[in-house]
Amino acid sequence: MSTPLAGLPPRVEVYEVGPRDGLQNEAAALPVEVKAEFVRRLVAAGLRTVELTSFVPKRWIPQLGDAEELLALLGDDQPSRAPVLVPNEKGLARAVAAGAREVAVFASATESFARRNLNRSVAESLAAFAPVVEQARAAGLPVRGYVSMCFGDPWEGAVPLDQVAAVALRLVEFGCAEISLGDTIGVGTPGQVAALLALLDREGLGADRIAVHFHDTYGQALANTLLALQHGVTTVDASAGGLGGCPYAGSATGNLATEDLVWQLDGLGVDTGVDLPALARTSLWMAGQLGRPSPSRALAALAPTLTAPTDQES
Amino acid sequence: MSTPLAGLPPRVEVYEVGPRDGLQNEAAALPVEVKAEFVRRLVAAGLRTVELTSFVPKRWIPQLGDAEELLALLGDDQPSRAPVLVPNEKGLARAVAAGAREVAVFASATESFARRNLNRSVAESLAAFAPVVEQARAAGLPVRGYVSMCFGDPWEGAVPLDQVAAVALRLVEFGCAEISLGDTIGVGTPGQVAALLALLDREGLGADRIAVHFHDTYGQALANTLLALQHGVTTVDASAGGLGGCPYAGSATGNLATEDLVWQLDGLGVDTGVDLPALARTSLWMAGQLGRPSPSRALAALAPTLTAPTDQES
Repeated sequence: MSTPLAGLPPRVEVYEVGPRDGLQNEAAALPVEVKAEFVRRLVAAGLRTVELTSFVPKRWIPQLGDAEELLALLGDDQPSRAPVLVPNEKGLARAVAAGAREVAVFASATESFARRNLNRSVAESLAAFAPVVEQARAAGLPVRGYVSMCFGDPWEGAVPLDQVAAVALRLVEFGCAEISLGDTIGVGTPGQVAALLALLDREGLGADRIAVHFHDTYGQALANTLLALQHGVTTVDASAGGLGGCPYAGSATGNLATEDLVWQLDGLGVDTGVDLPALARTSLWMAGQLGRPSPSRALAALAPTLTAPTDQES
Repeated sequence: MSTPLAGLPPRVEVYEVGPRDGLQNEAAALPVEVKAEFVRRLVAAGLRTVELTSFVPKRWIPQLGDAEELLALLGDDQPSRAPVLVPNEKGLARAVAAGAREVAVFASATESFARRNLNRSVAESLAAFAPVVEQARAAGLPVRGYVSMCFGDPWEGAVPLDQVAAVALRLVEFGCAEISLGDTIGVGTPGQVAALLALLDREGLGADRIAVHFHDTYGQALANTLLALQHGVTTVDASAGGLGGCPYAGSATGNLATEDLVWQLDGLGVDTGVDLPALARTSLWMAGQLGRPSPSRALAALAPTLTAPTDQES
């Protein structure tokens, strides 16, 4: 039984980031076969959009050093939308050669994080993304643009909204089809979300081209998501089992868990296409692969109700 | 820096339930001196309403078997509102004799929980509460009425809203000044909250006499709270450090942590009077007393930023 809430969209696209954003923050690199199986199980659980991996140099993020192998191993076993992260033109070339069908680039709203994460100023990193987006589009690939540190930065504190908006709008100018607004350290609260969405709307970037990417570091992710849905956003980033965080920001732990999100949307009668028990079994299986429990509250509550996962699950 | 959200109240009363609802669910009974110190530290952190304890028979809940001693030990060190739970007329008489200044009664919206928790039907338990409320008011004490299992029941599943409303309205008829709507197993989502508040409003019970009591079992507590605030509710139950749950419902863990709530309200510029670092230090101190970590996400994120608690804190 579900109880709708006035003003919410009938359908939400869950943008699953576990295989990329989640696994890049695990201490150990998993075998590529396990990653492929993870993606297959997520797709079988109804996730239509799964960010598969990142074409970063292996020396930057060894955990994702097998991007070509993963795409080859998956073959046609891919979700409807299967974006991969690319940090620069070289990464894009690798992704195109590997058969990627959509890419994402990752910008920072703050100078401090740009310096630490991208080793460039905000302006320099944006300038470097322009040809990446252009070449991707020339190759027929849609591009998502991430904006990180939208609501707070561990070094700079509060982030002026117009600074966030400027970065988002540049990415749109370059040709990004979707902008994902990231609360990388999880400090944001619903008023900030509303104010940023309103500002972007006034600047011509409507909620239909925006995704939200909240971290649950301070427990705020679902309340912020609700507010974004009330403002017309229909794409929400989440990570199966709450995998991942941010390797460059010490205090940042906990992507919004996909299970917590889907519990809410199921309760609201908002269609996601996700089979929650199948997703939860997938996350429990992944927790077993990683040897540590999931931080998802809904997953912990659901776990006793699930039958044991089997190797035949997918 | 805070960013307000249109439609929210300027001020929220945090109704702290840690010393009663939290500690009654701990395996071990703490020394009464530690409980008194907990209350003093909560008050020092700015909490104006703290539910102190329960005047239940010691054989029912041994953890709270020292209610008289606690009130005697606290003396004048009490918050502005210092309710105590009373299960029946005997408990009320004990509370009055001990100098309690406000009481609360605890009703169930479902037959299954009434049978298991109160050993009576819903109708029988309500009938038994009528004289309790009457006598309390005759003694000059305001009465809060809890309604548990408002959004789901582990034995019955979904709970019809008119069934919840009927119980709430009976408690108001008896003379309860405030009704706390409890999601005892934490399954509710924002649509249910909106629907119940709208129904109660149509029946004459406005948001100004309603408190919400959410559990974070499925990670939904803060989103549900946000929805309640948008509908005019200004009293929110929470438990320092997320202490407590429901001893009669196996799957129920995790009151909304006061830290997670105050982080959100601080971010929204909603006044609570609570000093978040002082509260967090109190919860870390209590976690040390209990020998287990707190489930509060905000507390975990804040902990590294806090100086060590001292015995001189309060």
